[in-house]
Amino acid sequence: MLKVGILGVTGYAGAELARILRLHPQARVVAVTGRSAAGKPLAHVFPHLSCYDLTVQEELDGDVDVVFSALPHAASAEALVPYIRAGLPVIDLSADFRLRDPEEYTRWYGVPHPAPELLERAAYGLTELNREAVRSAQVVANPGCYPTGAVLALAPALHAGIVEPDAVVDAKSGISGAGRTLGLTYHYSEANESVAAYGLGGHRHLPEMTQELSRFVAEGASPRLTFVPHLIPMTRGILSTCYAPLRPGALPEGDAGRRALAELYRDFYRGEPFVQVVPEPPSTKHTLGTNLCLVYPTIDHRAQRLVVVSAIDNLVKGAAGQAVQNMNLMLGLPETMGLDMPALYP
Amino acid sequence: MLKVGILGVTGYAGAELARILRLHPQARVVAVTGRSAAGKPLAHVFPHLSCYDLTVQEELDGDVDVVFSALPHAASAEALVPYIRAGLPVIDLSADFRLRDPEEYTRWYGVPHPAPELLERAAYGLTELNREAVRSAQVVANPGCYPTGAVLALAPALHAGIVEPDAVVDAKSGISGAGRTLGLTYHYSEANESVAAYGLGGHRHLPEMTQELSRFVAEGASPRLTFVPHLIPMTRGILSTCYAPLRPGALPEGDAGRRALAELYRDFYRGEPFVQVVPEPPSTKHTLGTNLCLVYPTIDHRAQRLVVVSAIDNLVKGAAGQAVQNMNLMLGLPETMGLDMPALYP
Amino acid sequence: MLKVGILGVTGYAGAELARILRLHPQARVVAVTGRSAAGKPLAHVFPHLSCYDLTVQEELDGDVDVVFSALPHAASAEALVPYIRAGLPVIDLSADFRLRDPEEYTRWYGVPHPAPELLERAAYGLTELNREAVRSAQVVANPGCYPTGAVLALAPALHAGIVEPDAVVDAKSGISGAGRTLGLTYHYSEANESVAAYGLGGHRHLPEMTQELSRFVAEGASPRLTFVPHLIPMTRGILSTCYAPLRPGALPEGDAGRRALAELYRDFYRGEPFVQVVPEPPSTKHTLGTNLCLVYPTIDHRAQRLVVVSAIDNLVKGAAGQAVQNMNLMLGLPETMGLDMPALYP
Amino acid sequence: MLKVGILGVTGYAGAELARILRLHPQARVVAVTGRSAAGKPLAHVFPHLSCYDLTVQEELDGDVDVVFSALPHAASAEALVPYIRAGLPVIDLSADFRLRDPEEYTRWYGVPHPAPELLERAAYGLTELNREAVRSAQVVANPGCYPTGAVLALAPALHAGIVEPDAVVDAKSGISGAGRTLGLTYHYSEANESVAAYGLGGHRHLPEMTQELSRFVAEGASPRLTFVPHLIPMTRGILSTCYAPLRPGALPEGDAGRRALAELYRDFYRGEPFVQVVPEPPSTKHTLGTNLCLVYPTIDHRAQRLVVVSAIDNLVKGAAGQAVQNMNLMLGLPETMGLDMPALYP
Repeated sequence: MLKVGILGVTGYAGAELARILRLHPQARVVAVTGRSAAGKPLAHVFPHLSCYDLTVQEELDGDVDVVFSALPHAASAEALVPYIRAGLPVIDLSADFRLRDPEEYTRWYGVPHPAPELLERAAYGLTELNREAVRSAQVVANPGCYPTGAVLALAPALHAGIVEPDAVVDAKSGISGAGRTLGLTYHYSEANESVAAYGLGGHRHLPEMTQELSRFVAEGASPRLTFVPHLIPMTRGILSTCYAPLRPGALPEGDAGRRALAELYRDFYRGEPFVQVVPEPPSTKHTLGTNLCLVYPTIDHRAQRLVVVSAIDNLVKGAAGQAVQNMNLMLGLPETMGLDMPALYP
Repeated sequence: MLKVGILGVTGYAGAELARILRLHPQARVVAVTGRSAAGKPLAHVFPHLSCYDLTVQEELDGDVDVVFSALPHAASAEALVPYIRAGLPVIDLSADFRLRDPEEYTRWYGVPHPAPELLERAAYGLTELNREAVRSAQVVANPGCYPTGAVLALAPALHAGIVEPDAVVDAKSGISGAGRTLGLTYHYSEANESVAAYGLGGHRHLPEMTQELSRFVAEGASPRLTFVPHLIPMTRGILSTCYAPLRPGALPEGDAGRRALAELYRDFYRGEPFVQVVPEPPSTKHTLGTNLCLVYPTIDHRAQRLVVVSAIDNLVKGAAGQAVQNMNLMLGLPETMGLDMPALYP
Repeated sequence: MLKVGILGVTGYAGAELARILRLHPQARVVAVTGRSAAGKPLAHVFPHLSCYDLTVQEELDGDVDVVFSALPHAASAEALVPYIRAGLPVIDLSADFRLRDPEEYTRWYGVPHPAPELLERAAYGLTELNREAVRSAQVVANPGCYPTGAVLALAPALHAGIVEPDAVVDAKSGISGAGRTLGLTYHYSEANESVAAYGLGGHRHLPEMTQELSRFVAEGASPRLTFVPHLIPMTRGILSTCYAPLRPGALPEGDAGRRALAELYRDFYRGEPFVQVVPEPPSTKHTLGTNLCLVYPTIDHRAQRLVVVSAIDNLVKGAAGQAVQNMNLMLGLPETMGLDMPALYP
Repeated sequence: MLKVGILGVTGYAGAELARILRLHPQARVVAVTGRSAAGKPLAHVFPHLSCYDLTVQEELDGDVDVVFSALPHAASAEALVPYIRAGLPVIDLSADFRLRDPEEYTRWYGVPHPAPELLERAAYGLTELNREAVRSAQVVANPGCYPTGAVLALAPALHAGIVEPDAVVDAKSGISGAGRTLGLTYHYSEANESVAAYGLGGHRHLPEMTQELSRFVAEGASPRLTFVPHLIPMTRGILSTCYAPLRPGALPEGDAGRRALAELYRDFYRGEPFVQVVPEPPSTKHTLGTNLCLVYPTIDHRAQRLVVVSAIDNLVKGAAGQAVQNMNLMLGLPETMGLDMPALYP
């Protein structure tokens, strides 16, 4: 039984780690931290975690075999450094180890990187696209929720070269993505029955998407991405609708083109337990509580454009679930262990 | 006092006409029809309209000065023909008089146009862009909810020639847009806490957008549009996020470009009572129950792309409110009469 | 044109006053205060009020003819004292002038009453039950949202003596009732898709209900009330389900009893513009944005119990709308002026 | 591995059985029926069940070890008779085996009981209160969702004799309780942002509550119950707020009384894995996706009334989860097998 420690259990991603690991047959959460709630029983902070007999601490105490961090950026890398130096496997849900270039990190996060010398040890944990790197990494940078949905939607098309590297990602997120910190934007009466775009000046998940999609652009160039996230009046789920110009002649006309496209996507994700290429536009509800990413590619022939829609649960495949998937890989366990349940529907 | 008749009062757009006209100082609804509810008091069908002492009828009885139709397409034109021939001013909320080309109509609606000879008499009632035509028309085709938001968002940029005529319209609609007819997709437990795209094979509002935006494309060519609507778990509101490639050099770099863009939009809509160019991305909630369209244009300089977000209440500016705005114009009343109220917030 | 001042415009009740008064033909809001936002344009604080060209101030400046206060308790009475002493008509939406007994006030609100000597000048503004007192009062204590729904539901039955003065009020409120102040309970992701009871140790609206219902208890005794409010995942609306034991023989058996009960309620509220005794259990949605209270009385013959359900919009009849109704009465205007619109539906 | 058949998999309770049993280590769903969808793959009807490679059938084919029925009443008993006669263990989620008196059944359900001779073989499966009967039963009548919450809330108090057998049950249910069949009441735009009471003329779950609570009334008499259900704009969850007059002197005054009450409830449910007596009023959200019933008892000393609030997930403890709990008992498996997961939160 693996002993797991969670840094920053008091946010939604941290709590979701504790929820998911409860179902894991080979891992057990033995220590959790969270500054604001230090000293309180975990069951007081989150009544749904009353199955745990743990007290929230300032620092992890006791031995652990693996460490997850759901701390805010900068604080996360700082807190993880000792565990990394001690040789423990570490999965970081913050942004700290996602961008390979520390200057890019500073540009977007406004602070110097706390441990640039460790960036090389980190694998970017979008599991399906980096499985071997994750398997052998000591540090995994768990992807942001938006990049997870967008990169899984666009990678097959960019990889196949059927589109120009010039895409729009229009993402619709449930409000849990904004976390548990209070704000007028997330106040029930303000957020309910309303939709709005945000981050139009540049969202921090953009460089992450660009970096990861660059791998699929033949010339090594960066794709030209516009990313606009939206807040939707629901708790969980991200739907990403992605648009890119089709290269002329890349696919047949009409339904034959759509079939070829679907086949291309199914080939790309063949054998993947958590990515399903689906025959109808997916609803985020079909992913609720699961580690699934549902992907629906199609063509707007009139406008010669690829449209790909992906759906995830932002707290599972977009955060804690993918983190456990990565842990499984890092520790040599079956990749789906503890993650194989149907969605809560309706 | 104008005597108003409403055909098809039993759907949401019809009921919304009755609601809005209740506040109109110069018009009074005197007769309403609706086959499924014929013979029932309007107050039984819609308790919120119990202020009306009207019975739903099969046909309008008695004299009316103006007729609105909220009937389904095809049925609407058929029902309106006698009133048009009788010389009455008519506002049609269905799609029947929107497309100028009857073959295009048949292509998208699957039936021959019921009265192609009358198409020439109809003005497309996106009021801000067709004010003079509406003023002198006997028949007004009230725009679809999606075209209203999208065309108002993109027209200024296309008109100014700052973008290529090649746009993506990603629209997020509340579920009332799907009407009152039952369907599993609109069943509460299925629609709640979920987002999905639909109409990916081609939505009927696309040719309408294309037709109206063509007016702003210099060469008279059609813009290349991709339109993807989404259902959002809320009752009212449409947010349209529109993307188009900036023409090189069309606007200055950086914030100067954004300022120039905002100025361009403000100029375009200067003096408009119902279109507001706003300094922050709008929330649909800020339009609830009003005839407003809020427009926020900005630039993604990295990707050299224009992004414009517009927000409307789909049942007001997207349907019944704009219809009353058109009625006011047609009948020589002040355009804002009966339509000048703040949003219901929160 | 009456010049209106609003103290505390930055909460939901204050903003709702501004919204409603915008539609009032004889009143105009000329000055608004709100400490946290002092110096900001009202349109920045609330974009839906951009029709106003007003700046939020620390104190009302300039002349006003009538003052509304939507300040918190204690602060409200303190701020109103100068206006009351100056002889201005005043409507207080806080709790400060609701309880006639200043000791009761201290017991429930934990502070000494700021102006006990003025309590005698105040009328309790549940308009339908205190019309004459309101008409001649200089100070009106606008009722709490919960007492409005509960007292209107129970008064006819207690007045007729058909029930024991022993009632349960189980109320379900939209979350706007909790105001605009942030709190984890009102954080979207926590409040959404959940229902909970609160205030089980004793809610401050209980003494107010008890005081007002005592007027209808023959012996002058207090009714024995249990009041349990619940938070419901919606923005506006209160549904109050009220239960009381029927006095034996007070009403006929079976449907005749239900008819007699409905008749009794219709008689009690005959001619009231804003209270409707309805033939089916009401939905809060039917009151959205209106000053209506819908009341549905029925009998559980098996248990010999009266059940009465009432529905209001907590921010209108439960706050700002009733306040304007009271203003109209105090100033000799038609009671329904500016308040006569259908609900926003759906 | 137990082979499980599900009759009526196409409703929400049937689908929830399939979801929950997927997580059961000793049971496997091998056959499912559903007339409307017969011939379709289960994964087409419910994409969230695409983990199953099953086709919906008209009748169960092949061998099964245990049968669940989620068919409508009357149809359920009819379909189950052959399995019962064949000696298979059967769990019926319909109402058919809940009421011991077939005349009572006819009174409430309007049809003769399809198999009155089998009623004696059935145990009422509110597991915590009938554990031994369930363990040895061949037929288990799985309780209704409302009775589950209400009976668990009131049983300890009635059993202890601290209240009069005269209670009000005010229940608030998510809309999935109304099932998957379409109806205007459950149409998104009608149900959203609204609360209403229903079933005021007598809900079918009332006789079930009365029957089961009668067991706890000393004199063998029936308790006098008023039950009013409400529809709440959320998908899952039932909160039941129950009120009953305290017997004079039954409990100490003040906080000592509340402590004694909590102790009484904790004693009653000591050792129960799925009933938790909680120290704060529960939110339905804390039960989402779980088989838990959270119970919070308190006293309104002013009114000398007991108030008990209970929270469940209507599709789990209120339907499919409790059914699996019963199956575990009937088949000699650990009672919590496959049911031991934290709630999905937020």
